[in-house]
Amino acid sequence: MLRTHDCGELNLSNINQEVELSGWVQRSRDLGGMTFVDLRDRYGITQLVFNMETDAALCEQARKLGREYVVTIKGMVTERSNKNLKMPTGEIEITVQHIEILNQSKLPPFTIEDNTDGGDELRMKYRYLDLRRNPVKKNLELRHQLSMETRNYLNALRFIEVETPYLIKSTPEGARDFVVPSRMNAGEFYALPQSPQTFKQLLMISGYDRYFQIVRCFRDEDLRADRQPEFTQIDCEMSFVTQEDILNTFEGLTKHLFKAIKGIDINEIPRISYADAMKYYGSDKPDIRFDMQFVELNEVCKNKDFKLFDEAELIIGINAKGCSEYTRKQLDELTDFVRKPQIGASGLIYLRCNTDGSLKSSVDKFYTPEDLKLWAEKFNAQAGDLILILAGNKVKTQKALCELRLEMGQRLGLRNPDNYAPLWVIDFPLLEWGEEAQRFYAMHHPFTSPKTEDIEMLETNLHAIRANAYDIVINGVEVGGGSIRIHNKDLQKKMFSILGFTDEEAQNQFGFLMNAFEYGAPPHGGIAFGFDRLCSLFGGSESIRDFIAFPKNNAGRDVMIDSPSTISDEQLKELSLIIHKEK
Amino acid sequence: MLRTHDCGELNLSNINQEVELSGWVQRSRDLGGMTFVDLRDRYGITQLVFNMETDAALCEQARKLGREYVVTIKGMVTERSNKNLKMPTGEIEITVQHIEILNQSKLPPFTIEDNTDGGDELRMKYRYLDLRRNPVKKNLELRHQLSMETRNYLNALRFIEVETPYLIKSTPEGARDFVVPSRMNAGEFYALPQSPQTFKQLLMISGYDRYFQIVRCFRDEDLRADRQPEFTQIDCEMSFVTQEDILNTFEGLTKHLFKAIKGIDINEIPRISYADAMKYYGSDKPDIRFDMQFVELNEVCKNKDFKLFDEAELIIGINAKGCSEYTRKQLDELTDFVRKPQIGASGLIYLRCNTDGSLKSSVDKFYTPEDLKLWAEKFNAQAGDLILILAGNKVKTQKALCELRLEMGQRLGLRNPDNYAPLWVIDFPLLEWGEEAQRFYAMHHPFTSPKTEDIEMLETNLHAIRANAYDIVINGVEVGGGSIRIHNKDLQKKMFSILGFTDEEAQNQFGFLMNAFEYGAPPHGGIAFGFDRLCSLFGGSESIRDFIAFPKNNAGRDVMIDSPSTISDEQLKELSLIIHKEK
Repeated sequence: MLRTHDCGELNLSNINQEVELSGWVQRSRDLGGMTFVDLRDRYGITQLVFNMETDAALCEQARKLGREYVVTIKGMVTERSNKNLKMPTGEIEITVQHIEILNQSKLPPFTIEDNTDGGDELRMKYRYLDLRRNPVKKNLELRHQLSMETRNYLNALRFIEVETPYLIKSTPEGARDFVVPSRMNAGEFYALPQSPQTFKQLLMISGYDRYFQIVRCFRDEDLRADRQPEFTQIDCEMSFVTQEDILNTFEGLTKHLFKAIKGIDINEIPRISYADAMKYYGSDKPDIRFDMQFVELNEVCKNKDFKLFDEAELIIGINAKGCSEYTRKQLDELTDFVRKPQIGASGLIYLRCNTDGSLKSSVDKFYTPEDLKLWAEKFNAQAGDLILILAGNKVKTQKALCELRLEMGQRLGLRNPDNYAPLWVIDFPLLEWGEEAQRFYAMHHPFTSPKTEDIEMLETNLHAIRANAYDIVINGVEVGGGSIRIHNKDLQKKMFSILGFTDEEAQNQFGFLMNAFEYGAPPHGGIAFGFDRLCSLFGGSESIRDFIAFPKNNAGRDVMIDSPSTISDEQLKELSLIIHKEK
Repeated sequence: MLRTHDCGELNLSNINQEVELSGWVQRSRDLGGMTFVDLRDRYGITQLVFNMETDAALCEQARKLGREYVVTIKGMVTERSNKNLKMPTGEIEITVQHIEILNQSKLPPFTIEDNTDGGDELRMKYRYLDLRRNPVKKNLELRHQLSMETRNYLNALRFIEVETPYLIKSTPEGARDFVVPSRMNAGEFYALPQSPQTFKQLLMISGYDRYFQIVRCFRDEDLRADRQPEFTQIDCEMSFVTQEDILNTFEGLTKHLFKAIKGIDINEIPRISYADAMKYYGSDKPDIRFDMQFVELNEVCKNKDFKLFDEAELIIGINAKGCSEYTRKQLDELTDFVRKPQIGASGLIYLRCNTDGSLKSSVDKFYTPEDLKLWAEKFNAQAGDLILILAGNKVKTQKALCELRLEMGQRLGLRNPDNYAPLWVIDFPLLEWGEEAQRFYAMHHPFTSPKTEDIEMLETNLHAIRANAYDIVINGVEVGGGSIRIHNKDLQKKMFSILGFTDEEAQNQFGFLMNAFEYGAPPHGGIAFGFDRLCSLFGGSESIRDFIAFPKNNAGRDVMIDSPSTISDEQLKELSLIIHKEK
């Protein structure tokens, strides 16, 4: 080893020891006769000191060190006169006796500091320098810790990690696949997995009982901000279980991770049905760090000749506690907010519950004080509260009020990233109607089982069928989801047929799974956590890119290695491919 | 849970408990009034008993259960009259009170037994049934255990697991890449990594100090038996280390795995130079479970008018201890063996050291008894030994004698798969000459550093340069390999130029790495273990396929899911690709 210690461990107990350290020059300062160099490695920073009086040549050498030079030094641990108690090594410094430059460095294009001066694009191009920054390093260390804790927890519960293949088969249902041309089978392609779904189900059929895998998945989607073409899942499956068993098992994992990583005790995780989540929060991933539930006002608002309300399918509001004294300007801001195209409300109605007990709304000319009192009662509103109301088409209005609720939560400081409020959302619909294709889609995926008590509606009312499907949501972010699966061939065939597959298509794409169902498939179900998302949540960040060592940009490019790129004609020929760009 | 216990845990301490079990029907036997069913799950087998006299209807139900039916039962743990002490549950049985069939099963196409009647192809097509067999399940459990132990060991040494990207850039050096067309960047491709080599080096440059990853890698090679297009590596890298540090660290890992998984104490792992490995074993991966080293005979064999020897570049032999009484037939077999085209020797010379002290060779007419005595002395041969000699071109003869040595080791029972003899092979040549392309290739890879003392030969004698490269070999199988890397831009450029890259090509393909070298790259090195191979070695098998849940066949096909397969015209169009098969 080119060191006896690392740069984070020396302290007063090491005084007078001869040590060797290696690392990067973080910064250096010349103070007349003394030169101080901060030497950095993964584990910390240690101050080196050079004295012009005792060794001028060595001190001259130190003065020439540039930022990010890599050096190895020998010296003596000495007590600092000027202690810095904020850092673990802040009570000592190394009086250097020998220094060797292991490698030089050009001046980095941005500073290697917690708050760097480098813009996003520059940092991505020089990601290997960005990764040196402490916040990024902490993120990757957190990720490592989360994966270790997850594995050890699941291993203790007798889950077995099984590696499933990456070169699989393209199946058009769901998102778009990345495909891989096969040279040995000209004209044929593998696909990269969007998830190991069918393989983990086969493992249950094989009797593996409890499977997990921390596994890369791939989706060729048009990238929105914070979507990556490759992402990581904690993928799990269990046999001989009910939904209750899965929820309990992974509630256990969630609690363990919070305790082990962040020292936080999570109480029993509440559950809400999809229907109630939509009704009270207008979202299937409600942020329950704060209350502010939706209240429906159709009954008390209609038939008073206010056209907006009378024509509305749904009138709903939230109570912004203590906001009755919002100014005109603040209310206008909120109105502008809900009118933004991505929110899409036509306007905002408010009701002030003034501190003097009076009520004042933006639609006073249609409603009497008694009417308004009824509204306020619906919210259990108190003096000082501000009621915000939206009306219109049901789905759109729920969505818009959901956004307004989150905005108000933000403004009121109710969404502290250090608070964690996990939630199970259960009883999802099995199917959703696709207007464009005029057909049903699986809300979770085609392998999700309908609730036993809803199965008869497969013949009568597809919209109403609930699935044995569940999501785990933390602070309004969907962190994981899963379902109890179909394990019966006929039911699976029926599902494919509802989803518009011909029997032939179903057999061609998923025949292996349906055949497997005929050889003793046990009841089984599972869950997958979005690992990148989980890391970012634990790290208190909104961006998953900060938790991926080498992420791609929104065009799917790795700007550091400049990929994707062209390949040689010889490669194309071997793969029997011709490129044909349409104008 | 559809069970209170699993099928492997009940014993006499559970007598008279009411239990629920779920699993598969392994077999059932009707013995007059009694029906016995063996119920299997991942954890074991428990015997169920049904009595015609006490509950005829239930017994009738049990009699109808087919093999591999999935059932859940309720019953009472009772002591067996006829105990089977070979199985953990063999002292009890369950007197069943209630049975529910969770799923039926068609008759499996082969028996789910340790020694199945299913052929290879059938088992691969129904891999989900093959995976139910105990030996395959044990293999995957071993694999899981190995990965857990590896992670926990490295984590304790402060290695951090970092996930590197799977969608990277195609680089023609080395094996052929699998490529992935980019839809968003028409005409451009990602490549799947053959290893995370450049990324782990970047992580060292980023200061991560100790990295590991258990990671999938991909090579589009023509598949020999026991090669897979996707395979798994334990990939590791360290900074501020010398070769000695890497060897010690991963010797530690190796010893830990043997101790933790197999309870075997491994002594200090011996080291041999590549040159000596070739000289004494004719192989860079010698099986040192047995001695039988090569002895060179040029000096004592030449100039006696025996043309074969006189014209030979190299005359080498091995001493098969105790084989002097091999029959004519046995010697003919060995001669046939070395003459096989894949071995390629022209013939085999032997020298019997008879038990009566006399010496008898197959070339007695050219050599006096005194000559032969000199030969025998070279081997320290004793009465009863048999010397086997090959001669010819150096490289070919070494290779042939290596095969003969392994064959003799096999015949003499010296290659017991339960004995483990790890070995470090060090000081590999940096380069090897490619006759076909008339250029040098990197023996390890282009990032491997030459030994400091050999660097001057970069200008004078490329053949003679040794690299800081090492392999770990166990029982004649290369399980891992690595090197100390180049961390200097100019040296890396020089290497690329020696390997026939133009400056432009080098910059285009590996510019990101060479640029990174300019910003403070630390000395670093690493190693990668072939994880599939390591598992098969620990499992005592020669085939890596047995340790992969869903392997591909020798044509790169997954016959279970029938992949690769054609994709839709729409997919091709989106990818700007046309398929063009040449005749």
